[in-house]
Amino acid sequence: MNKKLILNIVAKFTVAEALFMFVPVLVALYFNEFSCAGVFALITAVMLCVSVPFALIKPKKTDFYAKEGFAIISVTWIIMSLAGALCYYLTGVIPSYIDAVFETVSGYTTTGSSILTDIEILPKSVLFFRNFTNWIGGIGVLMLLMLFTPVSKHSIHLMRAELPGPTVGKLVPRGTVNAKIMYSIYIILTLVEIILLKFGGMPWFDSILNSFATAGTGGFCPKNASIAHYNSGYIDWVISIFMILFGVNFNLYFYLLMRKFKLIYKNTELRVFISIIVTAIIILTFSNIDIFENILTSLRYSTFQVASIISSTGFATHDFNTWSEFSKSILVLLMLIGACAGSTGGGFKVSRIVLLFKIMAREFNKMIHPNAVHIVKVEDKSVHEETISTVCVYLIVYVLVIIISTIIIALDNFDFTTNLTAVITCMNNIGPGLEMVGPTGNFSQFSNLSKMVLSFNMLLGRLEFFPLLLVMSPKLWNKKFI
Amino acid sequence: MNKKLILNIVAKFTVAEALFMFVPVLVALYFNEFSCAGVFALITAVMLCVSVPFALIKPKKTDFYAKEGFAIISVTWIIMSLAGALCYYLTGVIPSYIDAVFETVSGYTTTGSSILTDIEILPKSVLFFRNFTNWIGGIGVLMLLMLFTPVSKHSIHLMRAELPGPTVGKLVPRGTVNAKIMYSIYIILTLVEIILLKFGGMPWFDSILNSFATAGTGGFCPKNASIAHYNSGYIDWVISIFMILFGVNFNLYFYLLMRKFKLIYKNTELRVFISIIVTAIIILTFSNIDIFENILTSLRYSTFQVASIISSTGFATHDFNTWSEFSKSILVLLMLIGACAGSTGGGFKVSRIVLLFKIMAREFNKMIHPNAVHIVKVEDKSVHEETISTVCVYLIVYVLVIIISTIIIALDNFDFTTNLTAVITCMNNIGPGLEMVGPTGNFSQFSNLSKMVLSFNMLLGRLEFFPLLLVMSPKLWNKKFI
Repeated sequence: MNKKLILNIVAKFTVAEALFMFVPVLVALYFNEFSCAGVFALITAVMLCVSVPFALIKPKKTDFYAKEGFAIISVTWIIMSLAGALCYYLTGVIPSYIDAVFETVSGYTTTGSSILTDIEILPKSVLFFRNFTNWIGGIGVLMLLMLFTPVSKHSIHLMRAELPGPTVGKLVPRGTVNAKIMYSIYIILTLVEIILLKFGGMPWFDSILNSFATAGTGGFCPKNASIAHYNSGYIDWVISIFMILFGVNFNLYFYLLMRKFKLIYKNTELRVFISIIVTAIIILTFSNIDIFENILTSLRYSTFQVASIISSTGFATHDFNTWSEFSKSILVLLMLIGACAGSTGGGFKVSRIVLLFKIMAREFNKMIHPNAVHIVKVEDKSVHEETISTVCVYLIVYVLVIIISTIIIALDNFDFTTNLTAVITCMNNIGPGLEMVGPTGNFSQFSNLSKMVLSFNMLLGRLEFFPLLLVMSPKLWNKKFI
Repeated sequence: MNKKLILNIVAKFTVAEALFMFVPVLVALYFNEFSCAGVFALITAVMLCVSVPFALIKPKKTDFYAKEGFAIISVTWIIMSLAGALCYYLTGVIPSYIDAVFETVSGYTTTGSSILTDIEILPKSVLFFRNFTNWIGGIGVLMLLMLFTPVSKHSIHLMRAELPGPTVGKLVPRGTVNAKIMYSIYIILTLVEIILLKFGGMPWFDSILNSFATAGTGGFCPKNASIAHYNSGYIDWVISIFMILFGVNFNLYFYLLMRKFKLIYKNTELRVFISIIVTAIIILTFSNIDIFENILTSLRYSTFQVASIISSTGFATHDFNTWSEFSKSILVLLMLIGACAGSTGGGFKVSRIVLLFKIMAREFNKMIHPNAVHIVKVEDKSVHEETISTVCVYLIVYVLVIIISTIIIALDNFDFTTNLTAVITCMNNIGPGLEMVGPTGNFSQFSNLSKMVLSFNMLLGRLEFFPLLLVMSPKLWNKKFI
């Protein structure tokens, strides 16, 4: 392990985060929240003082492998979470530090689960910071750094560690130029949403905050009732569409800019993603028709919830805890599926699901025709056996983490559905679950142990397990094994 | 597909089943239940008339591959279930045929879930038949046939299709001689249990029936309160020990007979199985200490439930629905794990879990040291990549069937925990689940659709998915693909 290089790059990331933490300072000053401004400024200053020296010292060895990438991303996310939590803690908004960590991790990992029971009493600058974490977390800290420093040599390893999805193929942009285009798309889409929401009568402040939460597929909302607060069909539809847009692989927007429409049309993941969404909307619209007055209202609420859950945003316009068990089971399924790889969304990812189905089909064909050659193909390209093996292990880890976490959470003695869906919603970075952690509930009732487990689940899900689990393995740090 | 050979072997199986169905006739006559005797005799006669002609016609082609094996086993199990259901239906014990199928499938697959609300009012011969299905289903119809006809040439394909576990290695006995030894062990262990239970004050009839249910890890009990009815520490301990014994790979008893103690001692699956049991007993004993008067009582009830669930028997001595959420979550985990491969028990199987952990460890090592060679080893032998791939696909199918089934069951609008644990308990051939399907509940409240789905889950679990799913694939039957 090249520990000096790890320290150097982590320090660079910390500088970038510190600079971004300066934005809430300005917001606090604008709203005359001077004590909050002081807290944000203090945290920014301390982060800069600690990180700048290490960021400036250039390490002699620049060896950089996948394992260094895992370590850098994991450590960065942990520092980011612990430092961010100080904002809630020192402003006095959240008196428990563990609660503050939960809220921060939930923000940065774009989960959107909350331990706050009354959101509307928060200072405006803290509300801004809360949703800003959704926006920053959405596209990842990596992209952020790539805007400032050319780390293209290492970028592939860092991307493997941070970017969601089963493969880092040629789809993923390399280097700072592509990162800038990616970031531009992200910013432009966010701006368009802000304007469209403002146009629908939402105040500027709320438009900005809700757009941040949509873009990052985070789901934090400055209102206690979430998007239901605004009670507007127009706003529901705008947010529904943007949630789906942010759940799509961002490379497809690249193709759109490059006018490679055929590549978009042929994209298997997009097709499956859209098919799942349309099917789920149709099923839920008819399943919920008794709850809402008519089919159009049912369509509106069902579409919103499908888009919110599958994109892993977690906004709510209706308490789906009151829906039928069938509808709720469909929502849990959507939680498990998640968005597209290379999007800001969480979950298992549609591309992995596609791969699992193809792997399954291959095995069945093998059993029927044992002597034939069986290759897994996606979009006419054969999938590498390494990728297949990694996706299978991803499923193993995914199931294992759900089971172990649910058992630990069960120590709080809440009901099984609450425990299981709390873990599923946190691990897949959605936000709400069922029963006690449903849209009208929150995570404040859990014990500190459970909150720590759920925070860890959110990080595991956001970093797609491997980086964080590997960093915990002593083997990674043992020089003998290099 | 060699359809004529399939028909021939299925017919032979049906003859064997018909002959075994004759045992309840004798029991009915003994208890003077003449109408029941008539029904059993009629069903036996019809089965013989239909199957004997096909069993006698020898097919010209004797080509026999894995796919023929899958078809034979699947069709046999379906015929067995549909014919067995007639016993409940025609005796008038269960007025709905779908309910009768559920009860029969539950018996043969050694699940032990029931739609009956009052078991004790049943005629004695029907009670006998009910537990006899547990006993027959435990070791499988294949073994049965191998006692009568030498099908050793085909046996490996049939075993692949019927015997539980990830691999058919040299551990699995080949040919009729070994099958006879296996059956002898099964019978001897059952007899020993009958005598030990009788010694504990249980009536002969109950001793026989409960021993049948233990041996097959089925869990049907002639009493409404299950084993709790007898309220005896001695009986609880005897059954606990036998449930664990029947959850162990039967090949280990072979080794015991052959005095190959080292092979038993080194057996990874056994070690893990015992470790899981001991750990679970310790955790549950302490977790349940508040419910029972003292630690010894807690140990007795906890041990019984751990043995009952992990062996997939499903007997109960206490309503574990009233236990803490933590204890219940541990029990759900044990349901998912299941017994050893090559035992009469159900579940995912300990050997597969061991393999999954080793596959996961390999992937982690690969990520840390990408250039090293990574081989999965169990007991110092490298595991074939084919086996690894099949185990991974097994997990995919396992998760998929749980999800799809839970969603369909949710149409009945019962709570999520009931739906999920009903599917888990049926698919893993356990018996009871949580909430409505807990130890004091039963499956009668489900709709016909749900009962059919759950029956299918039981068959899928017992035949370990692949045979039944492949038989449903049109590709298997299409001659063009051969």
